[in-house]
Amino acid sequence: MKKTIIINGLFVTGDAAAPVIEGCMVMEGNQLTYIGKDAPQPLETYDEVIRGDRKLYMPGLVNTHGHAAMTLLRGYGDDLALQVWLEEKMWPMEGKFTAQDVRYGTLLAILEMIKGGTTTFVDMYDHMNEVAQAVSDSGMRARLTRGVIGLCPADVQEAKLREAIAFAKDWNGAANGRITTMMAPHAPYTCPPDYIERFVQAAHDLDLPIHTHMSETLKEVEANAEQYGARPVEHLEKLGVFTRPTLVAHGVHLTDEEIAVLAKYNVGVSHNPGSNLKLASGVARVPELLKAGINVSLGTDGAASNNNLDMFEEMRLAALIHKGVTGDPTAVPAAAALSMGTSMGARSIWLDDIGTLQPGMKADFIALDIDQPHFLPRTDYVSHIVYSASAHDVVDVCVDGSWIVSGRECLTLDEEKIKREFESCFARLTNS
Amino acid sequence: MKKTIIINGLFVTGDAAAPVIEGCMVMEGNQLTYIGKDAPQPLETYDEVIRGDRKLYMPGLVNTHGHAAMTLLRGYGDDLALQVWLEEKMWPMEGKFTAQDVRYGTLLAILEMIKGGTTTFVDMYDHMNEVAQAVSDSGMRARLTRGVIGLCPADVQEAKLREAIAFAKDWNGAANGRITTMMAPHAPYTCPPDYIERFVQAAHDLDLPIHTHMSETLKEVEANAEQYGARPVEHLEKLGVFTRPTLVAHGVHLTDEEIAVLAKYNVGVSHNPGSNLKLASGVARVPELLKAGINVSLGTDGAASNNNLDMFEEMRLAALIHKGVTGDPTAVPAAAALSMGTSMGARSIWLDDIGTLQPGMKADFIALDIDQPHFLPRTDYVSHIVYSASAHDVVDVCVDGSWIVSGRECLTLDEEKIKREFESCFARLTNS
Repeated sequence: MKKTIIINGLFVTGDAAAPVIEGCMVMEGNQLTYIGKDAPQPLETYDEVIRGDRKLYMPGLVNTHGHAAMTLLRGYGDDLALQVWLEEKMWPMEGKFTAQDVRYGTLLAILEMIKGGTTTFVDMYDHMNEVAQAVSDSGMRARLTRGVIGLCPADVQEAKLREAIAFAKDWNGAANGRITTMMAPHAPYTCPPDYIERFVQAAHDLDLPIHTHMSETLKEVEANAEQYGARPVEHLEKLGVFTRPTLVAHGVHLTDEEIAVLAKYNVGVSHNPGSNLKLASGVARVPELLKAGINVSLGTDGAASNNNLDMFEEMRLAALIHKGVTGDPTAVPAAAALSMGTSMGARSIWLDDIGTLQPGMKADFIALDIDQPHFLPRTDYVSHIVYSASAHDVVDVCVDGSWIVSGRECLTLDEEKIKREFESCFARLTNS
Repeated sequence: MKKTIIINGLFVTGDAAAPVIEGCMVMEGNQLTYIGKDAPQPLETYDEVIRGDRKLYMPGLVNTHGHAAMTLLRGYGDDLALQVWLEEKMWPMEGKFTAQDVRYGTLLAILEMIKGGTTTFVDMYDHMNEVAQAVSDSGMRARLTRGVIGLCPADVQEAKLREAIAFAKDWNGAANGRITTMMAPHAPYTCPPDYIERFVQAAHDLDLPIHTHMSETLKEVEANAEQYGARPVEHLEKLGVFTRPTLVAHGVHLTDEEIAVLAKYNVGVSHNPGSNLKLASGVARVPELLKAGINVSLGTDGAASNNNLDMFEEMRLAALIHKGVTGDPTAVPAAAALSMGTSMGARSIWLDDIGTLQPGMKADFIALDIDQPHFLPRTDYVSHIVYSASAHDVVDVCVDGSWIVSGRECLTLDEEKIKREFESCFARLTNS
């Protein structure tokens, strides 16, 4: 098994006992086996010795909610009212998406994500075989799920559910375990209750978790209460969703009681600050969620509502907006935001062996170029990561023990070809 | 006079009549003389022909409020309550700053700013001769002012005012007009009324504008009302401040009546969204300010409260937070945020010949590398600049007709030396 040592590095570990280490890290195969001040063995015993001077190594970022192929709709109708944006811009275009479009939309998103330090992402979309194949080819890690909208005739519902089940079965554990799956009824407002119950049953049968949108907008919460006599949390609880490990996306509009229910069932919340602001959905109650002990992670959502896939920005937004809105400058400190983007992100999608740099963890990590003005002075590197860094500072990326980005170049994908094919897809979509 | 033409470029002009032009731009000396689809003259008649393929050219960004040397305090005590941060972290360190510290703190800030596309900045600080010299050396443009705190004995007040006047006189119009000056009583809560009146008189005598902090925190507004029987806007109005062209920084806590007063006197507001969020000061009423016809520009504030000097981020925050907080997805559209970062920024510091790409304007512009995933598809470039771009996308920077950054390298300053000296300053400050 190949043994690699990084020497002279600065490591922001995510381990509260030793958050910053200057020294060495060893990986054997796809696992980290050592991190500490001195090399555990003479350097000549390693297959590879990497000098980490002027680089900061940290866990890869975990993007826990998104729709990667929506890169095809980046900048395609911004600053519009939500219904106009959805009905006149997003849905007509998405209705035309072919497998080829999803393939290249996803590949472009993956390029942007890995070059920007995201090593794991959640994707909920259609044509998921294409997404999984792209993940497999790229070397990234992903928790994937066919997101199903159930506002359709029974036979179409049935076909979609079968497709979601087949995808979840086929790909769970694929690509050396880099790909895992979930079941995903799209949202309480897009799936009838009995259809959601069938997803819960399928998740039980396959022993898989559930991912769904929940309480993103006030309007949707009020409509849920009117239609079903219960706000979304109670509604999903009644339907048995939380009997499965569950990750909800957004969770913007929550009462104290709802937060308590989510905490009781250990439901994770993917906070999407950029998307929630851009679509004017509101500001999630993140300080309260964290105080309740809920796993709060971060997601970019699709590129049409963000509009980039820079997880450093989501960490920064998470650290900034809750201070500004609550009036408390100690709300969501830098360390909490970093944890939301890494270890809590990993735990919220049930990947317990990524998200920190510690012996025994999978080798999913990134290196930033800190020989730049915005990383000086050498004060608090956790603060610098959250308040000053960006996706563009990432130079090297390792996932599952393999380098997939080196010196800012993606080693696994043909960037030029992907950009070209992506532009062809977009041209066809807009001209058809 | 040297004639340069850029061909095959994509130009986001800031001119509402022709916001995006694919074609050519000509500069002669320090002025833009043409922008349009076709080259006005045969290419062999130009001294320099630059191919702009895969680059987006736009006006340089204008940062209208900051304290550049505070880069020395980046990450030095984050996530603290405001008074603890000021009294235990900022003030004791700033009290030790020498001219040398301000020189290298400012030079590091200038490096970060120009490499990130900011071509003009406002600085309000101490040891301003050092700041002006750094601006002169760097090739940047700046509106500079000695920020004076007046909570001191009369003889110290007198000395500070004289110093502020001497600086404003000595440097106004220097460096081929790249440097202009202002008078700056620090804030209503740090300057006694009669001392502010002396600054107003000096500004009249020198025919210079006034810059001051105003209504950044609720506490300061309430204290002003209690101490002087008037909120800050009325207080400054009574002291005659607005009889001079005025730019106020922050303006977070404003009533409708105060907004009307600012509009009446054509007072500009430098909106600092990153700093206001991080210090938990609140969210300024930017949609209302814009509706009132006020020039709203953008500032990073000092790096200790931001923590980077990326003006793309300030544009993005300005476009995002007001949507999220007001619930209106059409609040502060991308074009407005871009204007705040460029043309409104220029107008708010009375530099009417920068901020757009149009014939007759000074040649202050930047080029972004748009051959990257996050600039695809080629939909709306104004949207891409505001919602997706960052400082790191900037490759070339031209100020006053001279290239000061080319291929991401600063041509005017010795980056390695500045980083080294900056680190020495920081080490001395923390060990003394």
